[in-house]
Amino acid sequence: MEKPYVLGIDVGGQTAKCGIVNANGEVLAQTILPSNEQRDASVFISDLAATLKKLISDAKLEQQVRGIGVGAPNANYYTGEIKFAPNLTWAREASVPFARMLSEQMDGLPVAITNDANAAAMGEKAYGVAKGIRDFIMITLGTGVGSGIVIGGNLVYGSDGFAGELGHTCVEKDGRLCGCGLRGCLETYASAVGVARTAREWLEARPEASSLLRLKADVSSKDVYEAAKAGDKLALEIFDYTGRILGAKFADFVAFSSPEAIVLFGGLARAREFLYGPIVEAMNAHVLPIWKDKVKILFSSLKESDAAILGASSLAWDLK
Amino acid sequence: MEKPYVLGIDVGGQTAKCGIVNANGEVLAQTILPSNEQRDASVFISDLAATLKKLISDAKLEQQVRGIGVGAPNANYYTGEIKFAPNLTWAREASVPFARMLSEQMDGLPVAITNDANAAAMGEKAYGVAKGIRDFIMITLGTGVGSGIVIGGNLVYGSDGFAGELGHTCVEKDGRLCGCGLRGCLETYASAVGVARTAREWLEARPEASSLLRLKADVSSKDVYEAAKAGDKLALEIFDYTGRILGAKFADFVAFSSPEAIVLFGGLARAREFLYGPIVEAMNAHVLPIWKDKVKILFSSLKESDAAILGASSLAWDLK
Repeated sequence: MEKPYVLGIDVGGQTAKCGIVNANGEVLAQTILPSNEQRDASVFISDLAATLKKLISDAKLEQQVRGIGVGAPNANYYTGEIKFAPNLTWAREASVPFARMLSEQMDGLPVAITNDANAAAMGEKAYGVAKGIRDFIMITLGTGVGSGIVIGGNLVYGSDGFAGELGHTCVEKDGRLCGCGLRGCLETYASAVGVARTAREWLEARPEASSLLRLKADVSSKDVYEAAKAGDKLALEIFDYTGRILGAKFADFVAFSSPEAIVLFGGLARAREFLYGPIVEAMNAHVLPIWKDKVKILFSSLKESDAAILGASSLAWDLK
Repeated sequence: MEKPYVLGIDVGGQTAKCGIVNANGEVLAQTILPSNEQRDASVFISDLAATLKKLISDAKLEQQVRGIGVGAPNANYYTGEIKFAPNLTWAREASVPFARMLSEQMDGLPVAITNDANAAAMGEKAYGVAKGIRDFIMITLGTGVGSGIVIGGNLVYGSDGFAGELGHTCVEKDGRLCGCGLRGCLETYASAVGVARTAREWLEARPEASSLLRLKADVSSKDVYEAAKAGDKLALEIFDYTGRILGAKFADFVAFSSPEAIVLFGGLARAREFLYGPIVEAMNAHVLPIWKDKVKILFSSLKESDAAILGASSLAWDLK
């Protein structure tokens, strides 16, 4: 009989979340370890392996785990490497053969890795709102903007494993400078950081506009969300602006792969009540007539704490 | 033994080109019939079937043809229909079940159809510069701008069969009005019509600039090409501008599917000597560092007269 469990690991800039998952997409046990204290990849991977072994033995599931799926920034499915990930202390200036190293530390258990947005897409497909949808685009609205593209039921990896960097498509010629070095990237407007940036720019550019946001020393996207909920006009306008940028750019993505749905995930997606209307309106205004009112905008249905683990774990079921 | 030949048909706004193709991608016999004289789809399809039967019997290949592949504007691979094709007199305001109707007229021979840019992509993959490339994007630069996207060796059809409308992605917010009703579509700048439009706009906006193009009553993209070959400064600048628009937008496409190559095809692609440099430069300036100097810009290698037939025919090999 095939082993009935897999491990899912979501590696973030601060912590790595690990869980044991069964075939029904239930997280049976989970734990967390810091991911920003290790200077060296081999140290982090040793820590991670020790944590995973303890998780397995605490759950009394030795010899029951089939494989490990990992979602991490800048992770490459083809090569198993994490490359030049600016948010990971131990992979910032290096190319880390993560899958191979972790497998070695886990006594040969097979390991598959992919970038975090792809993992989220797989999780949503296996267990979330994208269940049964063969063509969709996952957009993660977090600190940055990530994406995982599913076509005909399969994740798109492209020629080199790096496909799906939609956060770095251009929405404004000579627009805001992005961390990647380009200008006008979607991420500079439509991420949590982008929303905060819009708030700061507008507060300065419109000294006459009163807003609750003026009470904040360093405005965050969460502040903008809270202010919008309190009915603050400027905050509402910021979400309207952000949603329209997203919607107009989604029209480009629709022209590319004609998805049945675009699925939104991540911290900023919690502002659904303020983003949904402007996104749908702008998208419909910028697609060809054949797609008007056709492409669904969905919001992730997965429990935030489980979603990342589930997404990563879903990679592991296909491992041999 | 399987039948060794297929038919390829390229349906354009003026004519339909038909050919018999063998497994080596050789066009053994070909013919042409008008496609703009018929008011009604059933009349055109009868004419076409008669032409194909004569082509087969003249070549003495009765019972040797396996199936028929058709490339046509607005053709849908999934449904076998041609829908609301503005350039086809008999499908302008109708949805024509083309594959089924042609198969019936051809005594049950199986028929597959797809849009013309997808057919071009398949042809290039089977017989042209994209041979052996699993991930590429075909861009057809003709009267309009079409596209066929190949990922993991397969054409992308999307949820509804209409994927790959890259000519209608936006390159200029509130830019030129497109035939589709949207504004700023790539097609309005980077097609043959778009190049002529740039020429007319610039000639009017810059009355001080001398140019050979001033001698033309109604400037065409061919005129711009001829003038550029003669060293005309304005014409050269027009191609530079067009190439930069293409290259910058290609960067978006690369972020989507990370292709190994982008393949250019069609009348305007003949201006390779003037387009290649600006395209590559602008693309490299707008992609993430991981893709700099990585994505090839290729030009179709197929003989223009055969390319469309070959592309369409390549669909037919998989027919059962």
